[in-house]
Amino acid sequence: MFESPLFWPAHLKKNVLFVLDETLIPSKIRYIPVKNVKGAVLVIRHMKTRAFGQFLVVLNTFLLELNVKGNLIQHLEKVAQELNNSRPTFPFAEITGIILGVARKSYANGADVRIAVTKTIEGFLSGIRARRLQRVNEIAELLQSGDCVLTHCNVSGELAMAANLAKSQGKHVKFFVTETRPYMQGAKLTVWELQKAHVPVTLVADNAVASLMADGLVNRVIIGSDRSAANGDVANKIGSYQIAVLAREFGIPLIVLTQPSRGVATGQDMPIEFRCADELLIFGSKRIFSPKVQGFYPGFDVVPYQLITKAIAINAGL
Amino acid sequence: MFESPLFWPAHLKKNVLFVLDETLIPSKIRYIPVKNVKGAVLVIRHMKTRAFGQFLVVLNTFLLELNVKGNLIQHLEKVAQELNNSRPTFPFAEITGIILGVARKSYANGADVRIAVTKTIEGFLSGIRARRLQRVNEIAELLQSGDCVLTHCNVSGELAMAANLAKSQGKHVKFFVTETRPYMQGAKLTVWELQKAHVPVTLVADNAVASLMADGLVNRVIIGSDRSAANGDVANKIGSYQIAVLAREFGIPLIVLTQPSRGVATGQDMPIEFRCADELLIFGSKRIFSPKVQGFYPGFDVVPYQLITKAIAINAGL
Repeated sequence: MFESPLFWPAHLKKNVLFVLDETLIPSKIRYIPVKNVKGAVLVIRHMKTRAFGQFLVVLNTFLLELNVKGNLIQHLEKVAQELNNSRPTFPFAEITGIILGVARKSYANGADVRIAVTKTIEGFLSGIRARRLQRVNEIAELLQSGDCVLTHCNVSGELAMAANLAKSQGKHVKFFVTETRPYMQGAKLTVWELQKAHVPVTLVADNAVASLMADGLVNRVIIGSDRSAANGDVANKIGSYQIAVLAREFGIPLIVLTQPSRGVATGQDMPIEFRCADELLIFGSKRIFSPKVQGFYPGFDVVPYQLITKAIAINAGL
Repeated sequence: MFESPLFWPAHLKKNVLFVLDETLIPSKIRYIPVKNVKGAVLVIRHMKTRAFGQFLVVLNTFLLELNVKGNLIQHLEKVAQELNNSRPTFPFAEITGIILGVARKSYANGADVRIAVTKTIEGFLSGIRARRLQRVNEIAELLQSGDCVLTHCNVSGELAMAANLAKSQGKHVKFFVTETRPYMQGAKLTVWELQKAHVPVTLVADNAVASLMADGLVNRVIIGSDRSAANGDVANKIGSYQIAVLAREFGIPLIVLTQPSRGVATGQDMPIEFRCADELLIFGSKRIFSPKVQGFYPGFDVVPYQLITKAIAINAGL
């Protein structure tokens, strides 16, 4: 199967974690070496990696930090806290809490904490890899010849791989991708990986979604999600909510790839990250407005479950 | 009254038309000298001016072209045709048709065509200036202290002037402005002129409109329009349609500044301009994707009249 670099964007090699710098794509393919939790927090906070990449970075950071001298449990607690504070919307605390639980339990049982944590994390990683590959198959199965699929932001390899798989099954599927301002993940990441998957891809301005739908040019919307609530609401890249409202307006099914979580009851309970407004107000490294001009830049919005036609869930297996 | 440079972006001086280059704002304020219809077509086609600026350029171009030798009527017909072909969505033919009508009639009556056309155009210009100033007053009257107004693209000075007027009437009104990709007229023009009008202004990504509305941060939407149909549908900058759908979803009134026209029956009959996809696919003068990647870039979309709460119309007086 064709594998997109975004499907598994971080690899551990000789106690260094190499994290794909997604901010340089498509101009350059460069991996950032991360050696400890400080480096891990930086690649997350500066959005060098996002979405599933964050999950990989969090788990692998524990492996990087196992060889510390002194009180290992206390150290892992500090590592967990730093990761939890890196960005607000992704459920870091749910993941780090589970790893800490394993560490504490093996310590209490007199077992080797390093071996227990390593085995747990390696098990999680191979399990989630298998389940994500399975979801790629499910998405490909869902795609019909003639489909025109709109997507937003980037779903970390799965959509491009499903597109390539559907093509190899003889299906003709076209993709429309929103630019996804301000970070342009749609233009930079998704167009790039769909092009690598050898499927037809068209870039559209975020403003053109209603026009595209009104003209009957798309018949499915497929997006990912950064966090799910127990009631089925999902948080995803800013702009997802309006695409969901428009999909219902035009009678187009909305399919969301989710990672169910019991951490919050509804979307209203999810903390939404506000990015620095400079990301809107600075053009080509120059701030062109007076300091009085403000910027409103939430990184995510919440899609209410009522607008979601189908969720394709995978459990993180944690 | 405070007057925005965008309110009247083209001035005739000694047989040269100086057209404000809106693509350089806010970095530079520069006027392009236009001496004939060829220059006029270029400033329109390359979007150096847009919206009301196009109206000014069309009328003034006839004044520039009156001093030709030979058959004046035939020449003006050629001028009209070139203007009509400059861009598709704005109703150029309606305006040029009226001027041609005046020219032909005065010729048939044995009157001086140059004097008749000049008087007509000067009359149109002073009439529309008065009616636009009147609309600024109407918009200011509509604004209530405490209002938070979302706007999209740019309404050629009127909104900024109304904002300034409302402020001088003691009203506290805040403005949110969408970036308006791909040309960024919201970020570049509207933020700039609202800042000049000394009112609070916040820039938002086009993707953040649903989030802004769901959070209760705006209570009015005011946009302009490039063309109206007889049934009340309007064509405006791409992205207007989705903002209109969202305004209805969140129960927020949508106010549209219109120039009624009897040229087309419904929005479906308006030709929608597709801009060159390079404007999406080229980043900082570099095309980063393979030539197989396409771009979908309609310049406008149509807002159905059912979504419009209130139209503030002015007649062009033609």
